[in-house]
Amino acid sequence: MNIKSHLSLSYKKNKLFIDDHCINSITKDLKTPFYLYSVKALESNYLNFYLAASNNGLSNPLVCYALKANPNLSLLKSLKVLGAGADIVSGGELKQALKAKIPASKIVFSGVGKTEDEIRLALKCHRDGIYSFNVESIEELEMIGTVAQSLNKKARVALRLNPQVNVKTHKHISTGGKSHKFGILKVDIEKSLKKKSLWKNIDLVGLSMHIGSQLTCLKATEKALKEIVKLASALPSPLEFIDVGGGLGVPYNEDHPLSSLEEYMSLVAKTLKSNMKVIPRVVFEPGRFIVANCGVLVTEVIRIKKSEENKFIIVDGGMNDFVRSSLYGAYHHVLPLSKRSGNPSPCHVVGPICETADSFASNRSLPPIKSRDRICIGDVGAYGHSMSSTYNMRERTKEYILDVDGNLKTN
Amino acid sequence: MNIKSHLSLSYKKNKLFIDDHCINSITKDLKTPFYLYSVKALESNYLNFYLAASNNGLSNPLVCYALKANPNLSLLKSLKVLGAGADIVSGGELKQALKAKIPASKIVFSGVGKTEDEIRLALKCHRDGIYSFNVESIEELEMIGTVAQSLNKKARVALRLNPQVNVKTHKHISTGGKSHKFGILKVDIEKSLKKKSLWKNIDLVGLSMHIGSQLTCLKATEKALKEIVKLASALPSPLEFIDVGGGLGVPYNEDHPLSSLEEYMSLVAKTLKSNMKVIPRVVFEPGRFIVANCGVLVTEVIRIKKSEENKFIIVDGGMNDFVRSSLYGAYHHVLPLSKRSGNPSPCHVVGPICETADSFASNRSLPPIKSRDRICIGDVGAYGHSMSSTYNMRERTKEYILDVDGNLKTN
Repeated sequence: MNIKSHLSLSYKKNKLFIDDHCINSITKDLKTPFYLYSVKALESNYLNFYLAASNNGLSNPLVCYALKANPNLSLLKSLKVLGAGADIVSGGELKQALKAKIPASKIVFSGVGKTEDEIRLALKCHRDGIYSFNVESIEELEMIGTVAQSLNKKARVALRLNPQVNVKTHKHISTGGKSHKFGILKVDIEKSLKKKSLWKNIDLVGLSMHIGSQLTCLKATEKALKEIVKLASALPSPLEFIDVGGGLGVPYNEDHPLSSLEEYMSLVAKTLKSNMKVIPRVVFEPGRFIVANCGVLVTEVIRIKKSEENKFIIVDGGMNDFVRSSLYGAYHHVLPLSKRSGNPSPCHVVGPICETADSFASNRSLPPIKSRDRICIGDVGAYGHSMSSTYNMRERTKEYILDVDGNLKTN
Repeated sequence: MNIKSHLSLSYKKNKLFIDDHCINSITKDLKTPFYLYSVKALESNYLNFYLAASNNGLSNPLVCYALKANPNLSLLKSLKVLGAGADIVSGGELKQALKAKIPASKIVFSGVGKTEDEIRLALKCHRDGIYSFNVESIEELEMIGTVAQSLNKKARVALRLNPQVNVKTHKHISTGGKSHKFGILKVDIEKSLKKKSLWKNIDLVGLSMHIGSQLTCLKATEKALKEIVKLASALPSPLEFIDVGGGLGVPYNEDHPLSSLEEYMSLVAKTLKSNMKVIPRVVFEPGRFIVANCGVLVTEVIRIKKSEENKFIIVDGGMNDFVRSSLYGAYHHVLPLSKRSGNPSPCHVVGPICETADSFASNRSLPPIKSRDRICIGDVGAYGHSMSSTYNMRERTKEYILDVDGNLKTN
């Protein structure tokens, strides 16, 4: 049986396998809780994404993996070998991308709060600096100009358009609204283009957008793309690239309606083709899509607490290790490493942290589970370890990587 | 002018002071963002709490500071000198409390997920083990018994009653409901008392409760206390102590209606006195009340982004440094270290993290603020640094402590 949404997870004779390996067998000596990642799944996701872009006629696409989803060095190195670029949002992420040998010419720098120090770092890390600063405000553009001038360089930038997508009709789209901190309004972009002093040390090489993640509908994407194209054609010279951001979702839950990779890529290609004479290079910033289903959090049951009709599976992983369930109320699969026979019953899967929010699942129907059993939380490759903390003075969770040859390694 | 709810913050000639020190002057060389704590405020909060208990006729109260709020070692050492005990929820916190030289005889261990290793550590850390395990389930009681037997010891425990407080009428009370993972139902406690085998290596020395935090009304506290008292009087032998938990709130916002320390303490004392012949020792577990208003997060403005009617103050602190605003939508004061003259205007105070949730304040009326100004987020001493992470590969925020002599030190 294959578990939907889990590229590399499947049960064989009631044992949970990742790739072709029984998780219990390969990890039995590891102390829980820990993250386990499949490089095979990662590579497959990346290649699918890249090929979908190429196959839709977008030539030489640049897929900049969003490090914020998971900056694990081993995973980055694997992506680098496949040709991936990096979408970074801090000086720390820049250093990590460079450490994985991702070339500066494939790095885009996003985020509203780039500091002077970070801008300098990005300009100095290579003779030509990074591929692009995705600029989120005119005030930032000014700062980049000033720093570039002080270094006697020209900075490559893309302006991030705030497409004023109406969030009311798409509740999961959360970064493209006018009152959000992201992007620049069209009117402000137009004003800035007329202000020559701004561009002395800056090359405008692209436009960018990012309207949110877990897109359930592509209407907003289409609308935003058309805005970008309109803006591009009003520019004095052709753009080198259009950065369409990230946003493609993953089905954490079978019931979750999501746009597929094929639908998404075909929409991007069609919209650009039907509105532009020459299509510039397209840059993508996927994070979640590449890495979410590559990881599981393995945790051990400390005890089962029965309290009248409530059954609590108390595990040794907590919200400090994985916060999405608490922070966003996110749904994630709960999968025993060894499935016991018997009837499923409703359970609460909770952690040891002293907060009611510290819960991985409520009233979830699960097969019989006992103390010391190991279970895993699925699809935690993105925004899992990267958001983890030491709350309650717990040790930071370890990460293990299963490489394509079936070897298990730490970072 | 004193800022309500900030014990040690005040403006003098438009400069923000902590205790008697201008924050800008004493911290100007420190790299932002950072936490700054006042030991003076901490000590004052602790002593107020202790004295309120004593003055209400509760003799020899044990105030166990809840480390999860803020386990900073310097702060713990200061509390230790004043006689504080510790409420811990993990092996890591146990080690930290012992490092601060808090005696094992003043440590209570709470939490639903105590592991065998943690129980062993707590039993072995002193000849008599810790003061008490606050036991959250019968299954945990069994585990403690087994570990104690293997060590040939007797464990001191308090059973945590789940008082089945109706959460619907008190939305901020969130840990005392039947479907929450915390505490043991009365019916299960009564059953366990009859099962002699359970108690071979365990001394039942107390009963405990904790119904939630930021209590806005004491009715639930009173109800739960009465339940505890009823249960205590049905026991075969008198209890050494009753642990009434934490829960007293702090006024993050002036508009927030909260029970005062005096009201709370008087209610606890009256309820016990009018229902028990001999009042046992009372144990308290305050965290937030002791430390919340002792700390500020100082952050620097990277830039001001204007976008039509929206003004974004983009600061270098983010949700990875302080997550309460994002996680709970919590209100926190935003205070410039130097107040500029001019009319206040509505601002969004946001961090550099690429999430819309990364915001400290929305539409907050603030005096004029410019790039490179430093501002602070108030009342972040509790659940601030302890919940912080390195999300977006940002460095973990530093902490500085202002001692009672006005010296600034790192941990």
